[in-house]
Amino acid sequence: MSSKIHPVILCGGSGTRLWPRSRAARPKPFLPLLGKRTLFEQTLDRTTNPAIFGPATIVAGSAHRDLIAGQSGAAEGVRRIEEPAARNTAPAIALAALLADEDDILLVCPSDHHIADPQAFAVAAESAAALAEENWLVAFGIEAAAPEAGYGYIKRGDPIAGGYAVDRFVEKPDLETARGFVESGEYSWNGGIFCLKAATFLEELAAQRPAMADALRQSVERGEERDGIFHPDEASFLAIDGESIDYAVMENTDRAAVVPVAMGWSDIGNWQALHAASERDADGNSVKGRAQLVDCSNVHVQTDGARVSAIGLEDVVIVVDGDEVLVTTASGAQKVGKLKGAAGQ
Amino acid sequence: MSSKIHPVILCGGSGTRLWPRSRAARPKPFLPLLGKRTLFEQTLDRTTNPAIFGPATIVAGSAHRDLIAGQSGAAEGVRRIEEPAARNTAPAIALAALLADEDDILLVCPSDHHIADPQAFAVAAESAAALAEENWLVAFGIEAAAPEAGYGYIKRGDPIAGGYAVDRFVEKPDLETARGFVESGEYSWNGGIFCLKAATFLEELAAQRPAMADALRQSVERGEERDGIFHPDEASFLAIDGESIDYAVMENTDRAAVVPVAMGWSDIGNWQALHAASERDADGNSVKGRAQLVDCSNVHVQTDGARVSAIGLEDVVIVVDGDEVLVTTASGAQKVGKLKGAAGQ
Repeated sequence: MSSKIHPVILCGGSGTRLWPRSRAARPKPFLPLLGKRTLFEQTLDRTTNPAIFGPATIVAGSAHRDLIAGQSGAAEGVRRIEEPAARNTAPAIALAALLADEDDILLVCPSDHHIADPQAFAVAAESAAALAEENWLVAFGIEAAAPEAGYGYIKRGDPIAGGYAVDRFVEKPDLETARGFVESGEYSWNGGIFCLKAATFLEELAAQRPAMADALRQSVERGEERDGIFHPDEASFLAIDGESIDYAVMENTDRAAVVPVAMGWSDIGNWQALHAASERDADGNSVKGRAQLVDCSNVHVQTDGARVSAIGLEDVVIVVDGDEVLVTTASGAQKVGKLKGAAGQ
Repeated sequence: MSSKIHPVILCGGSGTRLWPRSRAARPKPFLPLLGKRTLFEQTLDRTTNPAIFGPATIVAGSAHRDLIAGQSGAAEGVRRIEEPAARNTAPAIALAALLADEDDILLVCPSDHHIADPQAFAVAAESAAALAEENWLVAFGIEAAAPEAGYGYIKRGDPIAGGYAVDRFVEKPDLETARGFVESGEYSWNGGIFCLKAATFLEELAAQRPAMADALRQSVERGEERDGIFHPDEASFLAIDGESIDYAVMENTDRAAVVPVAMGWSDIGNWQALHAASERDADGNSVKGRAQLVDCSNVHVQTDGARVSAIGLEDVVIVVDGDEVLVTTASGAQKVGKLKGAAGQ
């Protein structure tokens, strides 16, 4: 590696489908959903090896200021950027790119995912960085373990050193299509992890979304550092139409590449996904907190106080969080975000 | 009716299968499981019509002293008997009979059952009392609504005025046998409700269990009234071997009669039984407390605080009681009494 990789940690995503554990004041990245460290802390942990990674840049809203301060304490040299409002990923990544050196290699990391194999992540990061050095905009291509209709997919094109050119991106196919993708072996999930050189990304953004690129440059020029946090200029930033990096840049550029990686990735998109990513006993049950399970299989229990006693259940999730108790079938877990209480986030 | 019916309210039964609502300090009879009144209060309520009923006698252990005082306040002229220890129903009923006038007609009522139709109960009580006047020992024959293996059954014999002589009692048949009983139409459930003349019962007890009868007589002779509660002599009482009225008297006597009655009876033997006796919505769900149910059918939710959100469940019971949360399938409800916490009662 000629230079270090600079992690850009994005803190969006309220995680309403992980209600009641995830609530407005305690969103998903800042919860210890798997193990003792929060997803945000684990995201930082994955990029602390100084042989590979430089200091991280954290991009977040003001609502999470204290949570970030509390959970990034040990990481050294962290730069923080506070967005005046949520405008999706393209502007968030551009802010980090504008504040970086133009030759810096950025590794964009959502902070609300889980990666079981950090070593595989680091190896893929190095492959991606090598391609980014050559001005590819590199997406991590997550091994598509199942035909998930809710995900974005990346089709591999021609092989290039350490990866593939991207043939195309497909956003949320129907289930039948997703099944075909998985069977073909040519598609990966798009996990929202990208590796790119700051200057290359900004050039592409300027080409594809000139108004957005201008507004962001202005927002940074007029922004200011206060109490160790960079604040982009509010007026310029608010004028931006929010858009994902996928739509704004990746789907339109000729420089998109993909690095396939199998690293035990999960977006922990709902309670059933958390259960699947958890350590389970011989009956397929996973438990966090005080619980007794009798004649249960494939049951997830998570409680922050009250003891849970479960009898005879199969494929059920039980979550106790203070004054809220959630009991859902595995398949019903998708609907949690629509419950009263959860919707308020 | 030549004389009034004297209710004898028995307060036994911890109800471990209704844990966590039912706990050692708050046993089943004293909980408002259906409606706003507790089962004990409802038992008293059913026998307050002064045209039919005289004042009640309540037989209980010292552990329930305050609960009984608190929940029987409005009933007039109540006599209370405190057993030094639990010795099953034969001794409890005998204590009430010994303290009654010998011609008194006693109506023995467990206080941990639910009766949906109190009018049918009162009508049956009058039929039973007429037979008791003629020295029959009368059991209520509860309409056998289903082949329950856990219940006692009564087979009808020859008809007598207002009821039937008992052909035989059968305790807890296997399921196949119970099915035959229900199909035959000749069997009723034994709900533990009996109507008998004090003197007749004591004669039969003396004939069948002379030692028990002697010990009880001594216990009452040496007993004393303190603070409005009759305390049988402890030493004499503790010497008794506990036995139910069924085994000690009803199964051996020639004077057993049965009065069939359909009155919406339930022993609320577990959470599923409580659900079945509850008011249910169009999807068969019953809810007590704060809850939201999505795509649920035949689900019972009961919570004393935390809000319960349920998705996609069928035939499931959810109970929140302070620091305990129970989630069980309908069929698993039988096993609640064996859970840690429940077993301690």
